[in-house]
Amino acid sequence: MYLCCMQESSTTRTEVGQLGEFGLIDRLTKPFTPNQPTTIKGVGDDAAVLDTGGDQFTLVSTDMLVEGIHFDMMYTPLKHLGYKAVVVNLSDIYAMNGKPSHITVSLGISNRFSVEALEELYAGIQLACETYDVDLIGGDTTSSNKGLIISITALGSVDKDKVVYRSGAKVGDLICITGDLGAAYLGLQLMEREKQLYLDQPDIQPDLEDQKYLIGRQLKPEARKDMIAAFAQNSLKPTSMIDISDGLASELFHIGKQSGVGAYLEESGIPMHQDAKMMALKFQMDPTTCALSGGEDYELLFTIDPADVDRVRFLPDIYIAGEIVPAEDGFTLHTTGGKRHPLKAQGWNHFDQ
Amino acid sequence: MYLCCMQESSTTRTEVGQLGEFGLIDRLTKPFTPNQPTTIKGVGDDAAVLDTGGDQFTLVSTDMLVEGIHFDMMYTPLKHLGYKAVVVNLSDIYAMNGKPSHITVSLGISNRFSVEALEELYAGIQLACETYDVDLIGGDTTSSNKGLIISITALGSVDKDKVVYRSGAKVGDLICITGDLGAAYLGLQLMEREKQLYLDQPDIQPDLEDQKYLIGRQLKPEARKDMIAAFAQNSLKPTSMIDISDGLASELFHIGKQSGVGAYLEESGIPMHQDAKMMALKFQMDPTTCALSGGEDYELLFTIDPADVDRVRFLPDIYIAGEIVPAEDGFTLHTTGGKRHPLKAQGWNHFDQ
Repeated sequence: MYLCCMQESSTTRTEVGQLGEFGLIDRLTKPFTPNQPTTIKGVGDDAAVLDTGGDQFTLVSTDMLVEGIHFDMMYTPLKHLGYKAVVVNLSDIYAMNGKPSHITVSLGISNRFSVEALEELYAGIQLACETYDVDLIGGDTTSSNKGLIISITALGSVDKDKVVYRSGAKVGDLICITGDLGAAYLGLQLMEREKQLYLDQPDIQPDLEDQKYLIGRQLKPEARKDMIAAFAQNSLKPTSMIDISDGLASELFHIGKQSGVGAYLEESGIPMHQDAKMMALKFQMDPTTCALSGGEDYELLFTIDPADVDRVRFLPDIYIAGEIVPAEDGFTLHTTGGKRHPLKAQGWNHFDQ
Repeated sequence: MYLCCMQESSTTRTEVGQLGEFGLIDRLTKPFTPNQPTTIKGVGDDAAVLDTGGDQFTLVSTDMLVEGIHFDMMYTPLKHLGYKAVVVNLSDIYAMNGKPSHITVSLGISNRFSVEALEELYAGIQLACETYDVDLIGGDTTSSNKGLIISITALGSVDKDKVVYRSGAKVGDLICITGDLGAAYLGLQLMEREKQLYLDQPDIQPDLEDQKYLIGRQLKPEARKDMIAAFAQNSLKPTSMIDISDGLASELFHIGKQSGVGAYLEESGIPMHQDAKMMALKFQMDPTTCALSGGEDYELLFTIDPADVDRVRFLPDIYIAGEIVPAEDGFTLHTTGGKRHPLKAQGWNHFDQ
């Protein structure tokens, strides 16, 4: 009576790819309602927000990275991978205007990995812990049938009056972006191409020396700790914020949906590194599309009240790229050519692959 | 220059299986030292202990379950699996004498799983959340090349003066065990046998009706929320505690190692259910060995000051099974036949499989 439970009890079969990651999460978590008085914000932002007593809220965020889906061991050094796995989680804590403090790291590992290889991975985790001043406080280690799985949970804190959600954008707010976009995606394209070339001709080692910027953005991204510090120093509290992990367009849709607003972006305001623009053209791709849909930049997308414009105008590495508009005006891109295109949330969907 | 990083840079190659799970964790986490003043206890107990402000400590624990390692979809209904995945994490919070409050759930899923199947899994997660009064506050959902991966992090809290570590056992303390042991392991053996029979002759469905207890202990374990409540009601604070996930012997070694003590167990004091004893004999296994090494019972192993003996003597479902002794006396089992055997930490090691 217990065997073969994989036989579907339901007569309908909906494929996960039909819903996409966010549609799936919405559907699975809908029946859950928070009951704990300590839950300030549950599912649906970069991190959950808890009131565990004291002056600050506790922030909790978690991410899972799977070999073959999120990384390719052919071109990902283990130390870089460990570093990146931590950074992507910390980025979610910063996106709440918070400060990360602790992580747990769970690993699923196939017997392909030696202890020495795992020490390399942990050297990267340790470097990230030191760089961002967080403590490793626990985890789980288990075997896996296939490949490497890394699941990290990050905890942090934020002053109760400083927490920033995705839902706070108001019509007229200015849209700001830190750093530059598209480079991590183009670094990935570059390494994928070199991998194919190498597989075809293993005796030729690729020379990627002049593409250090793009490759570095993909393999060893940083979270914008410095920006959160700059906000505090300049008494700036964004009205909404999200980190750019899936691509600018997708993140802007999250802010729009949760704030009940629309937005326009000025194409000329979207920051890109010269190397990323060049590489996009080399791959015969539109640079702006790479910035809008590329993902993995781990920059911050945030909105500010227009009265705060002077607080960001003179901060380095922040770019004003558009404005929040009423929901009925939707999401548009104002191109450098003077046209208006509807934006699409083409964020990276690993269920489509 | 970036390709083929899986080539070992080190000349030695140590297999993970040589160290075992705990040896591996020790080696990987050794270089990490906690720097945050909020970290009261990092790696090395059932849960990490943080002082996030307020009257209570925050507890954090995490576990990863991998298909084919921790569960077999042939005989694990998805709803049960979701329930169990939550419970095993909550058990770690109770083992600190705490109360769980929040969980995050990350999933890696292959395209074998439909949305309807995942809804079944989440129905189990939701049932556990309701039963144990915890909120689902976040997670991550990604695709996996193969099978199902569930990574859960549980958060909880404990009054600062009530937290119980593995390290507090003192010579002369009494060793207590809740519930009964070995049944989950024997339930697993039973289902493995039935699976083989079914694979050989798919037209014969097994009749497991009279083994509901053993199968229930394996497929749908409960965490001992009731015991923590009973401790509070009777003003009992154990001197040390751990949950029994890997087997009694292995857990006792953890307490001994961290408390700097040894221990003896009375074989007659180890609680077993009649069905478990019978099934062990049917499988021609020693019942006590099943209790010592079986694992997955999610009962509590704890020690009390002998002065507190009257506080537990009249509590239901708690069994006094031995005593803490000086470290130099080691770990022994006093058999019902009057012999003394050295105990071995034969906890379940999934790296050996």
